[in-house]
Amino acid sequence: MVNIAILGFGTVGSGVAEVMRENAQSIAHNAAEEIGVKYILDLRDFPGSPFADWMIRDFGLIESDPDVQVVVETIGGVGAAYEFTKRALLAGKSVVTSNKELVATHGHELLEIAKRLNVNYLFEASVGGGIPIIRPITQCLTANELDEIYGILNGTTNYILTRMITDGAPFADILKDAQRLGYAEADPTADVEGYDAARKICILADLCFGKSVDPEKISVEGISRVTLEDIEYARRLGYKIKLLGRAYRLPGGHITAYVAPHLISKTSLLSNVDGVMNGIVVHGNALGECMFYGAGAGKRPTASAVVADVIDAVKHRKARKYLGWDESEPGYLVDAGDVRTRWYVRTGSGLSDIGRAFGDVRLISYPGEYPGAGPGEYAFATPELTGRELAAKCAGMEVRSRFRIL
Amino acid sequence: MVNIAILGFGTVGSGVAEVMRENAQSIAHNAAEEIGVKYILDLRDFPGSPFADWMIRDFGLIESDPDVQVVVETIGGVGAAYEFTKRALLAGKSVVTSNKELVATHGHELLEIAKRLNVNYLFEASVGGGIPIIRPITQCLTANELDEIYGILNGTTNYILTRMITDGAPFADILKDAQRLGYAEADPTADVEGYDAARKICILADLCFGKSVDPEKISVEGISRVTLEDIEYARRLGYKIKLLGRAYRLPGGHITAYVAPHLISKTSLLSNVDGVMNGIVVHGNALGECMFYGAGAGKRPTASAVVADVIDAVKHRKARKYLGWDESEPGYLVDAGDVRTRWYVRTGSGLSDIGRAFGDVRLISYPGEYPGAGPGEYAFATPELTGRELAAKCAGMEVRSRFRIL
Repeated sequence: MVNIAILGFGTVGSGVAEVMRENAQSIAHNAAEEIGVKYILDLRDFPGSPFADWMIRDFGLIESDPDVQVVVETIGGVGAAYEFTKRALLAGKSVVTSNKELVATHGHELLEIAKRLNVNYLFEASVGGGIPIIRPITQCLTANELDEIYGILNGTTNYILTRMITDGAPFADILKDAQRLGYAEADPTADVEGYDAARKICILADLCFGKSVDPEKISVEGISRVTLEDIEYARRLGYKIKLLGRAYRLPGGHITAYVAPHLISKTSLLSNVDGVMNGIVVHGNALGECMFYGAGAGKRPTASAVVADVIDAVKHRKARKYLGWDESEPGYLVDAGDVRTRWYVRTGSGLSDIGRAFGDVRLISYPGEYPGAGPGEYAFATPELTGRELAAKCAGMEVRSRFRIL
Repeated sequence: MVNIAILGFGTVGSGVAEVMRENAQSIAHNAAEEIGVKYILDLRDFPGSPFADWMIRDFGLIESDPDVQVVVETIGGVGAAYEFTKRALLAGKSVVTSNKELVATHGHELLEIAKRLNVNYLFEASVGGGIPIIRPITQCLTANELDEIYGILNGTTNYILTRMITDGAPFADILKDAQRLGYAEADPTADVEGYDAARKICILADLCFGKSVDPEKISVEGISRVTLEDIEYARRLGYKIKLLGRAYRLPGGHITAYVAPHLISKTSLLSNVDGVMNGIVVHGNALGECMFYGAGAGKRPTASAVVADVIDAVKHRKARKYLGWDESEPGYLVDAGDVRTRWYVRTGSGLSDIGRAFGDVRLISYPGEYPGAGPGEYAFATPELTGRELAAKCAGMEVRSRFRIL
């Protein structure tokens, strides 16, 4: 019998408690040992909860209880979560988390502590919710030199973009709807402006390329400036607009990583990942391309990944799993604005300005049914340019949108 | 430094040697140890091969060499492969394979031997080629009760069906083309008639549901009877025809497993898995649905999975990975013909026969552009029926096709 403690009884924490109880038998079978929840730490009261007997408010109890071998951190953020994770690891306990912010920000340090104390720090749930992605990268694709990873990493923004396409309603309306339905938070900034996806792509880049990437240092652009006109122009090109987190290797041992809306071809499988679902594409030099798809958030899917990590931590109490990456040197991360890509541009400027800057590009046909896209507006795709080159070419033009083409 | 031996220098075996050489540095990093190929066993000559120095013809050399810790079996089939795998395991070596026939047929026995000798028998490459699927099931989805697994498990048949849809050319023509292009073998029976997919779905069912399923005992139907008319009727319903391997739990601790062409909705992600690619959907009670997509065959993708297993075997020399399933009791596997599903039926019988057997079903509109589908032919979808119920209803009718609807 192994005992665990859950820190934070919010959506994910309560999901973990539920799944642990519901699937206790198969979990015990898979772990080759029974696993029980001994404590749940939360400052709030949960009167009438079936888990009320386990509730405590003092982390010290968990820290000093040698019976507790695995701690599940589902508090979120980098405050108490950071402190308690460190203290749990230093007390010789393995820690499992869904906290992408903490892993993206302090993962390197926490993994070093885990290594030193010969315990595990596992975070499958931090990216892609219930989708297996961390372990496939670290265990199944180890024969490859990984070149690139990108994907739809945030369900809220994918839901909004999907509904903008299917309903033909603007961003602000769909966002309100998403908030009403619980797919977006009251303060939607972290999702809508891409910060959530930024943390996730940094964790993926850390694992794929072996060195730390700071989410504060990458270029991040959300979806609030994607308009219905953009969606319609993209459709006419055979593309959909999706918010992607993306990281790839560059020559000379550098990488780039960023979050931005992209036009992606409708013939790609990823363009069919709709609604709140996530999809992550990995490219390796032996495997080629593979994709992982599933529910990227939600109580039970996320709990599925957390509990799988708990089982793994229990099975690897004596043989620690190696997971980790090095510190990165200055210059390792190349700013996404300095990397070449094709662009979609929508502009209020006239043909002579476009021709002067871009030559005789082909214009995307005019979607008359969208009132905002009147005469005098043009959209086109550019050849490969860095963001800075694009900005220079567009100097003096009225640019309404510009998004990368994958 | 760990030494390995490769049995069989065919497509996969030579891919393993290539990837081991090409990615030696990152493989050593991921395994935390250098891994070298000491022997390659094959009866053929490979003059001029860069690996000629390692070629041997006597398995005894490998068996008796204590230096060889991991054996890669890429011979295929259940003859020499079975014998050498057993002997390698009994000699205390871990074995890694891409041989689905051997794992599906003798996996239980070989895993028991591996367990007894505290070595590993790993077979990530046996299903889905380079797609991570075995390890995600056994390590990432362990918090779930798995209900169902299904997918496009054979690239050759998916290529043929995809081309039938895009080119509007019949099965026999596309098969010839596929053979010319190397996507189908000279004797295409194992792929086209579904036997390859049958082995794979049995391995997946073994792992997901914990008991042995014999590929000889499941119902298997290939794609040779799928016509252009079927594809067109499916299209009009909003479906595509795909060959699926499928296994799911039934009440009372039973399961069913089978291979058959299915009509699958164009709105599902799996229906967009085209060409030689594979896609596998897993459903668990906590996670919901997830999908794994990638190259299901081919030299380098398969080698990617084999070498990842080699790395895992090297890392787990002291702590064996648990992988295995129990023998199944009689009655565990329910024949697919006894399980209810919706059916698509195409018949040369008239309306009164259809009405008598099925009531007032809605008929799928007539695709005039296909010459074979003349007046007097009808197609429709049935409510849920077992295969036997369907056969009873159709007694006396001229049934041209009947496929399951997912």
